[in-house]
Amino acid sequence: MKIVILGGGPGGYVAAIRAAQLGAEVTVVEKDKVGGTCLNRGCIPTKVLLHTSVEMENVNKEFKEIGIDIKGAEINWEQLQRRKETIVNRLVGGVETLLRSNKVTKIAGEGSFVNSRQIKIKSDDGEIILDFDYAIIATGSAPVIIPLPGINLPGVITSDEVLSLKEIPKSMVIIGGGVIGTEIASIYSSLGCKVSIVEMLPDIVSNMDQDIVKPLKDKLLKNGVEIYNNTKLESINNSSNGLQLNVSSSSGKITIQAEKVLLSIGRRPVTENLSLEKAGVTTEKGRVKVNKNMKTNADNIYAVGDCTGGAMLAHISSAQGIVAAEHIMNRKPQIDFKTIPYCVYTKPELAGVGLTEKQAKERGYAIKVGIAPMYINGKSIIEGDTDGIAKYIADADTGEILGLHISGPRATDLIVEGALAIRLEATIDEITSTIHAHPTVGEILHEAAHSTYGNAIHIPKK
Amino acid sequence: MKIVILGGGPGGYVAAIRAAQLGAEVTVVEKDKVGGTCLNRGCIPTKVLLHTSVEMENVNKEFKEIGIDIKGAEINWEQLQRRKETIVNRLVGGVETLLRSNKVTKIAGEGSFVNSRQIKIKSDDGEIILDFDYAIIATGSAPVIIPLPGINLPGVITSDEVLSLKEIPKSMVIIGGGVIGTEIASIYSSLGCKVSIVEMLPDIVSNMDQDIVKPLKDKLLKNGVEIYNNTKLESINNSSNGLQLNVSSSSGKITIQAEKVLLSIGRRPVTENLSLEKAGVTTEKGRVKVNKNMKTNADNIYAVGDCTGGAMLAHISSAQGIVAAEHIMNRKPQIDFKTIPYCVYTKPELAGVGLTEKQAKERGYAIKVGIAPMYINGKSIIEGDTDGIAKYIADADTGEILGLHISGPRATDLIVEGALAIRLEATIDEITSTIHAHPTVGEILHEAAHSTYGNAIHIPKK
Repeated sequence: MKIVILGGGPGGYVAAIRAAQLGAEVTVVEKDKVGGTCLNRGCIPTKVLLHTSVEMENVNKEFKEIGIDIKGAEINWEQLQRRKETIVNRLVGGVETLLRSNKVTKIAGEGSFVNSRQIKIKSDDGEIILDFDYAIIATGSAPVIIPLPGINLPGVITSDEVLSLKEIPKSMVIIGGGVIGTEIASIYSSLGCKVSIVEMLPDIVSNMDQDIVKPLKDKLLKNGVEIYNNTKLESINNSSNGLQLNVSSSSGKITIQAEKVLLSIGRRPVTENLSLEKAGVTTEKGRVKVNKNMKTNADNIYAVGDCTGGAMLAHISSAQGIVAAEHIMNRKPQIDFKTIPYCVYTKPELAGVGLTEKQAKERGYAIKVGIAPMYINGKSIIEGDTDGIAKYIADADTGEILGLHISGPRATDLIVEGALAIRLEATIDEITSTIHAHPTVGEILHEAAHSTYGNAIHIPKK
Repeated sequence: MKIVILGGGPGGYVAAIRAAQLGAEVTVVEKDKVGGTCLNRGCIPTKVLLHTSVEMENVNKEFKEIGIDIKGAEINWEQLQRRKETIVNRLVGGVETLLRSNKVTKIAGEGSFVNSRQIKIKSDDGEIILDFDYAIIATGSAPVIIPLPGINLPGVITSDEVLSLKEIPKSMVIIGGGVIGTEIASIYSSLGCKVSIVEMLPDIVSNMDQDIVKPLKDKLLKNGVEIYNNTKLESINNSSNGLQLNVSSSSGKITIQAEKVLLSIGRRPVTENLSLEKAGVTTEKGRVKVNKNMKTNADNIYAVGDCTGGAMLAHISSAQGIVAAEHIMNRKPQIDFKTIPYCVYTKPELAGVGLTEKQAKERGYAIKVGIAPMYINGKSIIEGDTDGIAKYIADADTGEILGLHISGPRATDLIVEGALAIRLEATIDEITSTIHAHPTVGEILHEAAHSTYGNAIHIPKK
């Protein structure tokens, strides 16, 4: 069985490895480094910068209190950038080793369909044609650029460039207060940059439960970040103070000055140079249409990850890659897409899985909600990190867990409890009857579950 | 329903709150501060010191690498001790608020039984007698002192004193390499003290899966801690260099010098001044005997926590407190004691739940083991913390999860996945079909589960 995969990101390379494990002869076509946006320009480099920015914030705000006297601390931006490159290269090398050890062939170049059985690969060495039994399209996404006056001015950048700036800018306006926007706001504001966020919607990180977003919003405001909600960018021009943004909201038009402008208003599927029509693969608004097994309308062509639209998260792409590989290889994919976690790696960390309170109500569920505030949690107090809450959402009739939402220390890891609970259709009683270690941050999940039925031990009775 | 509870630690106060929630009239008798050993002399103060010692280690070993230049850093031991007291007092105050808000009466004094319906309380104000329908014994434990020559010399201390030393000692020998011993070794070695551990058994932290203990052992050795296994303390005497320990092993007798000697060879139930015989309650080797509902041989007297022996962990005591309260109040307790997590809060953190590999084999299970090393995990690389592994143990026939063992960053919180998996009798397939967020430390659990059947994506094929 010959499988050709277009794209070596977290969708493509995982599909390749899984298919190879199941006995396929697999080729991955990648024009850039393997690992995709996530590894090279997304999740990984962002978290490298976040790690240092959080530690720097700890040095400035926490160390004296915890008994560490620091004479002077400053960011070595060059070293941080070097570390980022080193880690990215180490992980890229890791993916290459994985592909090799699984006998996956990697071809450098850009692939496009010749027909539904052949792919043409253009590279510096010329063109080759590959035959395939099955193909998987995993070509990812790119930042959306809106065609506004001034959008091409120097200093207007996307998430591709913001992680590799030569120095920390004095000021930055971030257009779009989603996950990327708030993470970048968190990094640069911690490092001394004056940051503003311009968001069209009434809330930042609007896809997550707003009860867990609030502690992050409060924190950003406390750190001097200005947040403009319900506000739209109209145009950008040069001014004597750098760039001038002209924005409008219901309260009128204002201008904001900044050295850099980050556009983080979303990402679009990359499908334009694939000659999909030659293979008979149909798209909708630029994204490849797929069924639940990640199959396109063409019987032997699959698509996974950001190029299929949706939430565009690396772990979704990888899960879809496994589904596609297993379906091609005649296995029955088991992955439960109700268990997708959504994470923001700021301080406090945010993580959610399943339905938010709003989504549960919109879907007509009668729900019970259990909330526990992080400041009652001993371990969070010790870690000096008590901003946040845990929130369980359960079906009022059955107690079945519909969602878990956490902000606070280690939230992005603690979310495993909620994901597994949803996978196993667990009830609140099954969480409360599970022992949670003391003293851990995870105890807050136990309290939130208890409080769903008014039985919290560590929340004072009103 | 009148319930009197002897002891206000994590067993007693949780039992009190749960019983009050269910409508009982509850009195807690406590001679000291509420919160017990855990809050006042155990878990909480230890973790305060550990948090600072880990951060200090990060400053010394990681900060330059992550791009933070520090001119000079030193421990402010007085401030750290103050913070420890502040946090302990805040949490003690929290427990008092919880008791008050649940209308639990607290009496300061020492209780002992008059008969099976009355307790006598001695305090500075004299004696009073309380009638009860039910009593719960939750009197905790105390460090074991072995009667060896020199054991009473100044400088020989227990875990009660080691957390409140006036200054960081130059050297310390720790007798007993269990959880307490290794945590203290980790704290003081990070702060510049020369630490040695003397352990009678062949391994340190011998109750946990040794595959997860190894990375901690390696780390301690790397940090200059000397570990003497299979070694027994014979006597202590004064010498010109402080204290001299005379120890013996199969390779002969040696001496070790140290400024302080910590005895952390275990804890014993505290039951001696309770006049248990007057209530007809029987003990065995000093521990109160109970059934699965935490009932003693006397029909209306229960016991929970360390005074009943066993593993002596705060979260076990609290779970038992809930069981006792619910059983007294005619509820059917649901807590699943197969889900007890065991944690060590060093760097790397250790956590385990369910059966270790050794225990599973001893019980005759045919098992499958899945191991993933932390160094393949992107988030751990970013956090500069790649010592460790995750290890799933499953029944070879059914795939049911028997144990999860983790060493590495956030292990003590990630263990929630294993505890819930055991609670719900989940299989390895149910873990692999649950999506784990990228990039998180938790992905290593996913890899370990995949590797149980040789399907790991991120471990190179051999």
